Amino acid sequence: MSFDDNLDRLARLCVGFGLQVKPGQELLITADIGAADLVRRITREAYGAGASNVQVFFADDAITLARFTHGSEDAIETAPGWLFEAMAGAMRNGSARLAIAGGTPGLLAEQDPGKVARANAAQSVAAKPFMEVVTSGLTNWNIVPFVTEGWAKQVYPDLPVAEAVETLWGHVFRALRLDHDDPVAAWQTVFDTLAKRREYLTERAFSALHFEGGGTDLTLGLAKGHVWAGGGLRLADGTGYAPNLPTEEVFTMPDRGRAEGRAVFTKPAVINGTIVEGLVVEFAGGKAVKITADKGEAVAQTYFTSDEGASRLGEVALVPESSPIARSDVLYFNTLFDENAACHIAFGNSYSMNLAPGADREAAGANESTIHMDCMIGGPELSVTGIASDGNRHPIMEKGEFVI
Amino acid sequence: MSFDDNLDRLARLCVGFGLQVKPGQELLITADIGAADLVRRITREAYGAGASNVQVFFADDAITLARFTHGSEDAIETAPGWLFEAMAGAMRNGSARLAIAGGTPGLLAEQDPGKVARANAAQSVAAKPFMEVVTSGLTNWNIVPFVTEGWAKQVYPDLPVAEAVETLWGHVFRALRLDHDDPVAAWQTVFDTLAKRREYLTERAFSALHFEGGGTDLTLGLAKGHVWAGGGLRLADGTGYAPNLPTEEVFTMPDRGRAEGRAVFTKPAVINGTIVEGLVVEFAGGKAVKITADKGEAVAQTYFTSDEGASRLGEVALVPESSPIARSDVLYFNTLFDENAACHIAFGNSYSMNLAPGADREAAGANESTIHMDCMIGGPELSVTGIASDGNRHPIMEKGEFVI
Ligand SMILES: [Zn+2]
Ligand SMILES: [Zn+2]
Ligand SMILES: [Zn+2]
Ligand SMILES: [Zn+2]
Repeated sequence: MSFDDNLDRLARLCVGFGLQVKPGQELLITADIGAADLVRRITREAYGAGASNVQVFFADDAITLARFTHGSEDAIETAPGWLFEAMAGAMRNGSARLAIAGGTPGLLAEQDPGKVARANAAQSVAAKPFMEVVTSGLTNWNIVPFVTEGWAKQVYPDLPVAEAVETLWGHVFRALRLDHDDPVAAWQTVFDTLAKRREYLTERAFSALHFEGGGTDLTLGLAKGHVWAGGGLRLADGTGYAPNLPTEEVFTMPDRGRAEGRAVFTKPAVINGTIVEGLVVEFAGGKAVKITADKGEAVAQTYFTSDEGASRLGEVALVPESSPIARSDVLYFNTLFDENAACHIAFGNSYSMNLAPGADREAAGANESTIHMDCMIGGPELSVTGIASDGNRHPIMEKGEFVI
Repeated sequence: MSFDDNLDRLARLCVGFGLQVKPGQELLITADIGAADLVRRITREAYGAGASNVQVFFADDAITLARFTHGSEDAIETAPGWLFEAMAGAMRNGSARLAIAGGTPGLLAEQDPGKVARANAAQSVAAKPFMEVVTSGLTNWNIVPFVTEGWAKQVYPDLPVAEAVETLWGHVFRALRLDHDDPVAAWQTVFDTLAKRREYLTERAFSALHFEGGGTDLTLGLAKGHVWAGGGLRLADGTGYAPNLPTEEVFTMPDRGRAEGRAVFTKPAVINGTIVEGLVVEFAGGKAVKITADKGEAVAQTYFTSDEGASRLGEVALVPESSPIARSDVLYFNTLFDENAACHIAFGNSYSMNLAPGADREAAGANESTIHMDCMIGGPELSVTGIASDGNRHPIMEKGEFVI
């Protein structure tokens, strides 16, 4: 399979399985300028599927950086709310949405962390109406990766750049099941497995989960009426779609007020461009009350207290150690991959799709924040136990693998 | 002067003189993806001048083409009105606007002309609110060129592409006065000259212009209360700006009902990717009543009857033969250059800036159309005479040069 063939297969997987673009539907694409090759293939594929318009929004590292290197304080705190509003409006009118992930992970690492935090906060606030439509299940959306040089250099700083790009593409193509004869069929099998797990877990309606192993001993209350999600989603009109490709997780909403114990994080977290290693967090009453790290401790402490909800949890996700991404044992510096490599909990905002449609978030125990940061606690030692409301314990994972 | 130095000088000219970006002002940029190098320099320059946000919208030839090669009829007739509306809204709220011109001129030449015409019409309708804000004088805007490979190949099809790009850049840099020690001072001199011409002509308030020479013998009525424009503009708050760089023309609004005689066009026109050569048009009662051409006659006839206003005139512009662009004697396939190479008339829509603010367009004789196509009538033989309302004749240009 040539590289071009693989990109074409990725474009077909994205449009035909990930998005399932409907005839007459508009498609909004956001991508790094370096991913133009894939964007062009996806655009042709989407028009071929009957898209009425493909609207591409390209981002560029140098343009993103210029705000920090040449912009005023006013520029740091400005984000184009009008554009997010317009995109949200288009999606409310039925446009599908595709994000190509693969920007340079450490792009802002050299910039003043205070500036970066203020810019991210402004961006989050401006993007809120947009993110709400994306996560509300109103329209089909999808995220797929593209290996840019900036990303590959971060993952393989010691390799020549062409080799870094090629090596990372190898992992990406495998994680995307493009090495299978029929990638769509392979993904259908994965999604069937994820559907069984999420249906089982939703039906059990556990009161809490207990994570244990590798130093972690954490009991995490689940939100009232929580729903497990993962794999495929379905629109009101019945159209199926796959938000993330690759994806290996099932995930739900924790109760913002009930987390007790200690989490030892098994992979570095990248916070505003800083790599945080050896992170350990103690929780009481749902809140992170002690945050330590071998590297980047101050950055973590600042970030996880950046607003009231930033020190509480918005997501808990289960991923087996046998997933292709976990087995590659690479730190990808990219959420689309790293969150699918291991069980994780996320600090910050929770997803409404993890409650019944229209449920009262506040009453259910949902967390609210401008941040959402996945941190990995999974590993070969980890066991996960469901605790029913009657106190009974049901094993879910043992030594990093599902036993349900 | 290295190429990089010239691009930096162009970025400074664009932000400091063309746009005159104000502290706290947002800047919207539209550009071909191939112009990213210049866009990055302009972005840094704009942030340095205090811009609050620089929002870039990149277009891409392959993505533009995909609509025609892979899109349904629905796609051909769809344009993102919501995005034009949003950009218009941002400009009404004060955003400046920059267009980088330099896309591939013949990009759609191989496509079905009917499809191209339908797509252009849909685009024009969707872009109308946006174009209205741009031309209304509400905000500072500017167009500057960037030489893409696609553009250079069209201008110099027989040169190796790198040489074509370099040769075209040479002309572009000279046309932009970047070969002057102080390009801003050079442009200030040009703009002073243009201001004198437009003030003289506006004050005279000629009833009509008579063009004669090289086969042309055309009397063109001017709109009631017409205002001559050209060079710099000024916002209500006094900020000056330069819409087009380069620019050599002064222009005004013809009366849509008064054009009599014959225009022999002295340069090819590019209509939807087709090169129309040897165009001759006879006018009666303001309307093109006979359209002939040596090449592309049918395309011209179809285009100039695509709506009621397409066969009538919306602009008349005067450019001396001594302008650097005219002297380069290159057909640029790019309006920013070709319209500044020679006197021209434009079929289609007229500009509101050529009337007093708030004037009644209909009553003044303004033409309305979804098209606006500049066609060159200038040449070394052309004389232009102003006809006053008392019938007196005043020479304006002789043998292609101003005599006022
Ligand atoms: Zn997750
Ligand atoms: Zn997450
Ligand atoms: Zn003109
Ligand atoms: Zn014009």
